[in-house]
Amino acid sequence: MKIGFVGLGRMGQGMARRLLDAGHELNVFDIVAEHAQRLAAAGATAVASIAELAHEREVVVSMLVEDRALRDVTLGEGGLRDSLPKGTIHLVMGTHGIATIRELEARHAEAGQTLVAAPVLGRPDLAASGQLGIVPGGPEDAIERVMPLLERLGRRIFRAGPKPESAAAIKLANNAVLGCAMVAMAEGFSLVRKYGVDPQVFQDVMTEGLFAAPAYKIYGQKMVDRSFDEVGSPISVGLKDAKLIAEAAILANVPMPSHNVYLDRLLGAVAHGDADRDQAVLGREQARAAGLE
Amino acid sequence: MKIGFVGLGRMGQGMARRLLDAGHELNVFDIVAEHAQRLAAAGATAVASIAELAHEREVVVSMLVEDRALRDVTLGEGGLRDSLPKGTIHLVMGTHGIATIRELEARHAEAGQTLVAAPVLGRPDLAASGQLGIVPGGPEDAIERVMPLLERLGRRIFRAGPKPESAAAIKLANNAVLGCAMVAMAEGFSLVRKYGVDPQVFQDVMTEGLFAAPAYKIYGQKMVDRSFDEVGSPISVGLKDAKLIAEAAILANVPMPSHNVYLDRLLGAVAHGDADRDQAVLGREQARAAGLE
Amino acid sequence: MKIGFVGLGRMGQGMARRLLDAGHELNVFDIVAEHAQRLAAAGATAVASIAELAHEREVVVSMLVEDRALRDVTLGEGGLRDSLPKGTIHLVMGTHGIATIRELEARHAEAGQTLVAAPVLGRPDLAASGQLGIVPGGPEDAIERVMPLLERLGRRIFRAGPKPESAAAIKLANNAVLGCAMVAMAEGFSLVRKYGVDPQVFQDVMTEGLFAAPAYKIYGQKMVDRSFDEVGSPISVGLKDAKLIAEAAILANVPMPSHNVYLDRLLGAVAHGDADRDQAVLGREQARAAGLE
Amino acid sequence: MKIGFVGLGRMGQGMARRLLDAGHELNVFDIVAEHAQRLAAAGATAVASIAELAHEREVVVSMLVEDRALRDVTLGEGGLRDSLPKGTIHLVMGTHGIATIRELEARHAEAGQTLVAAPVLGRPDLAASGQLGIVPGGPEDAIERVMPLLERLGRRIFRAGPKPESAAAIKLANNAVLGCAMVAMAEGFSLVRKYGVDPQVFQDVMTEGLFAAPAYKIYGQKMVDRSFDEVGSPISVGLKDAKLIAEAAILANVPMPSHNVYLDRLLGAVAHGDADRDQAVLGREQARAAGLE
Repeated sequence: MKIGFVGLGRMGQGMARRLLDAGHELNVFDIVAEHAQRLAAAGATAVASIAELAHEREVVVSMLVEDRALRDVTLGEGGLRDSLPKGTIHLVMGTHGIATIRELEARHAEAGQTLVAAPVLGRPDLAASGQLGIVPGGPEDAIERVMPLLERLGRRIFRAGPKPESAAAIKLANNAVLGCAMVAMAEGFSLVRKYGVDPQVFQDVMTEGLFAAPAYKIYGQKMVDRSFDEVGSPISVGLKDAKLIAEAAILANVPMPSHNVYLDRLLGAVAHGDADRDQAVLGREQARAAGLE
Repeated sequence: MKIGFVGLGRMGQGMARRLLDAGHELNVFDIVAEHAQRLAAAGATAVASIAELAHEREVVVSMLVEDRALRDVTLGEGGLRDSLPKGTIHLVMGTHGIATIRELEARHAEAGQTLVAAPVLGRPDLAASGQLGIVPGGPEDAIERVMPLLERLGRRIFRAGPKPESAAAIKLANNAVLGCAMVAMAEGFSLVRKYGVDPQVFQDVMTEGLFAAPAYKIYGQKMVDRSFDEVGSPISVGLKDAKLIAEAAILANVPMPSHNVYLDRLLGAVAHGDADRDQAVLGREQARAAGLE
Repeated sequence: MKIGFVGLGRMGQGMARRLLDAGHELNVFDIVAEHAQRLAAAGATAVASIAELAHEREVVVSMLVEDRALRDVTLGEGGLRDSLPKGTIHLVMGTHGIATIRELEARHAEAGQTLVAAPVLGRPDLAASGQLGIVPGGPEDAIERVMPLLERLGRRIFRAGPKPESAAAIKLANNAVLGCAMVAMAEGFSLVRKYGVDPQVFQDVMTEGLFAAPAYKIYGQKMVDRSFDEVGSPISVGLKDAKLIAEAAILANVPMPSHNVYLDRLLGAVAHGDADRDQAVLGREQARAAGLE
Repeated sequence: MKIGFVGLGRMGQGMARRLLDAGHELNVFDIVAEHAQRLAAAGATAVASIAELAHEREVVVSMLVEDRALRDVTLGEGGLRDSLPKGTIHLVMGTHGIATIRELEARHAEAGQTLVAAPVLGRPDLAASGQLGIVPGGPEDAIERVMPLLERLGRRIFRAGPKPESAAAIKLANNAVLGCAMVAMAEGFSLVRKYGVDPQVFQDVMTEGLFAAPAYKIYGQKMVDRSFDEVGSPISVGLKDAKLIAEAAILANVPMPSHNVYLDRLLGAVAHGDADRDQAVLGREQARAAGLE
């Protein structure tokens, strides 16, 4: 298939490579030129603009971090909306806000293009090995058309339904649940520490049974080890998503008090200088609130 | 070993039976006489009072739900403190509050007895099959003496340290983390529902990866199925524990804002008539707050 | 002084009229033409566009509700930035968000114009009688130039300092404190109701001493009387401001958990169909959460 | 009237003196003997036990800080319940919890005595000058009998209804509203500080209009002045009451999320070493959370 791919960072790099290796013809673009060059070396065509990227493509995949970047790429002059032929698909695989998805969906529709939101679950290593979870949302026929790509990228596909915003909501809600889990763990650790417990013991208890899952195993252990400088997902990215979650909650009139606690702890972490540390540093932020640091 | 066992409800029944089946000599007592009779039929000695229960025992196990019951059994006239010989152990396996554990530990010590707190993780089926997690806290030598019992009852033993309150704190903190997880799931479900998502899809996404653990699989699925009348752990028991958690947090000066959200949702559930339903009904309580019911 | 005035709603109408009555020469504009006609009948010049409004003015006052409207009026084609002469002042008297104020300040500066933010405290009757509180923020000399206007409109002027955003922050923080007061009252009412108390008695106790102030007298009494359909400030406007407060808090990394509670109750009120009712309906929203409705 | 008065601290001292000066015959008791001696010097009879205090009294007033002290005085051996004649009244004027009031009411009733709860609003200076607000709750006829005393002590009487717990609930709810106001102010101050505002300006804005009441004037100004060591009401007393409020909320199934925020900030203040400082130090505790200290 003739594909464009924009956003070749830690996630996008591996995803684009998998599409390339499956024999698809890829135009690629990233604001960091080296990112595109690496794929060009593997057979992709590195282009110099979004307009070129879109040229004669059936599908353009975007894998961007910020809503602002997605808006620029899509709605900017010479952007995807201006450049993509009618009948094509913009497959948005980043984590984006409801308002952005809604607006871009509408603007693409005006131009005879279709937006499919397909946010992913998983880290760069899973992206590179095609083991992601993928949550596509959009018109049935459009999803069918991109399904071969999704199946190349993911191990499991979860159909969100005919609206792109449904997919975005699932991804945001999943992140909210994760954030709340981290804050809850942090509260647990600070409580037991006050009663003389070695945090590792609490971590072992927690992850032995009810919480024998990566969210608790990974983030809990990092809280125990205080390995906040080995950064998987930093506070700043958590905060970016937490803002999108809060906006989604407000837009749909959903009180989310647990998520508010997560958001507040993120703000506190930033205020205390931990913006670039791993989100597990929320364990320290909670400990601060309890006078333990 | 000569053991007394008080509290033969859904958990205690299976636990006492396992001790009996291992060849221990058991005195048993429960305020519901039939509970004790069932064990008597299997070879235990059903007694009529705590004083008789304690007679010539090395260890008395209590597996009670309420702090009040534990206090009565321990400190009431003719209770364990009055009746147990010096040098014996009261092995407290229920989930109890810090203040209660501290007071009982001190009162037993005055009488030359030792309190070991060893709360358990797991449901009645795991209790019956010896698959519990057990978290003993107390003096090293006392724990060594009861270790054969603990190993008969549990699959894995987590040493909390030399203070019984440490064990109590771990159990309470673990329950807090669970309560927060339920409330967070509930927020996630209410958010995605507003964006047109089938709750089962969100449940599948959530439990596929980060949250592939019983807490999410069990409670999340019950929220999806709305099977609130199939009661594992009811709201009322959740509330009992949440109050103990709140007391532990206050006693140790630990702000626990996520746990407060859980406690508030429990109160709302009771206020809306759901006290006897499964805790998964917190999904409905959150949905109410979002105008979805 | 040659003044332009845009935004002639319930607040702006009275304010513009006071400037007119003091002998200033006024161009006026509102998207609702009748609003402008009413002032034209009193001697103002009703104009048909922002460009005309700005013509030869020294100061243009805007008194708009929405950030979006302020942006359009200021940055839209032929807007104030395009139309105002160099050296003039845009006196922004509505309640707006930090990001909007910052951006507009910068854009005006590029064009040699000065933005002064001067949000007001008080209702339409105080606006009409020149009894407002006014909080100007901006460069000292610019504030001096508009001081005669502020003194005509307000009873008391509170200098926020040299940055417009400081003034915006004060207004938002004041609204946050009000929202939190409403929610706190509501919690108080729901608590005492459960213990058999006539809400009027609690209202009397509350406003007799510590809380003998309009915030409690007005909103508390409305909660008692359940006069939610006599709308002073509706939930929808509270929500608009609460979103701006939340954005200001996030931008400055300030956890504001009490304000989060207010925001959540606003969302709940909207979800339950009370968007157009007076904010005192938060009393009912809290009562709902407690199972009292 | 023949009156007993127990609890002669900062509040009780002035209250007992006013009763004495009005010609009543007073037995007085306090665990600090000098407190009683001071009143004896003014004509009261200092006694050595609660039993003596109760001797031939028609009414015994208690003005104690802790629920535990009230329980001991009332239910201890030789306490008021044992010692008061039938038909007499225990007038409980301290701030106490619902459960305590309920239990003591029942125990007094068993002995043919009547408990009237009449918590007070106001500081020691108002107590000494008979300017308190008083909120009596209890059987109508009992309240009529003590009304002359209440009118001697208070400027305004608010009838809570026939149940003592109603009066207790009003007092607790009023304290909750105060606590929430302090926390909200604190959030406001921390927000404006981040935007370059002099806290005094925000204090002036806040107390000029909507919040022109003692709660805001007193505590807000202390936050501005950082005069945390001039202690009116310390954090520790706020925490004592906040726990009673939380218990009242749980007992009645009322979610009180704003109050939870207050309670958490109190815990944080204690954890950071501010237990003995004025409650205005919550301003600093909030600032800490925002990285401002």
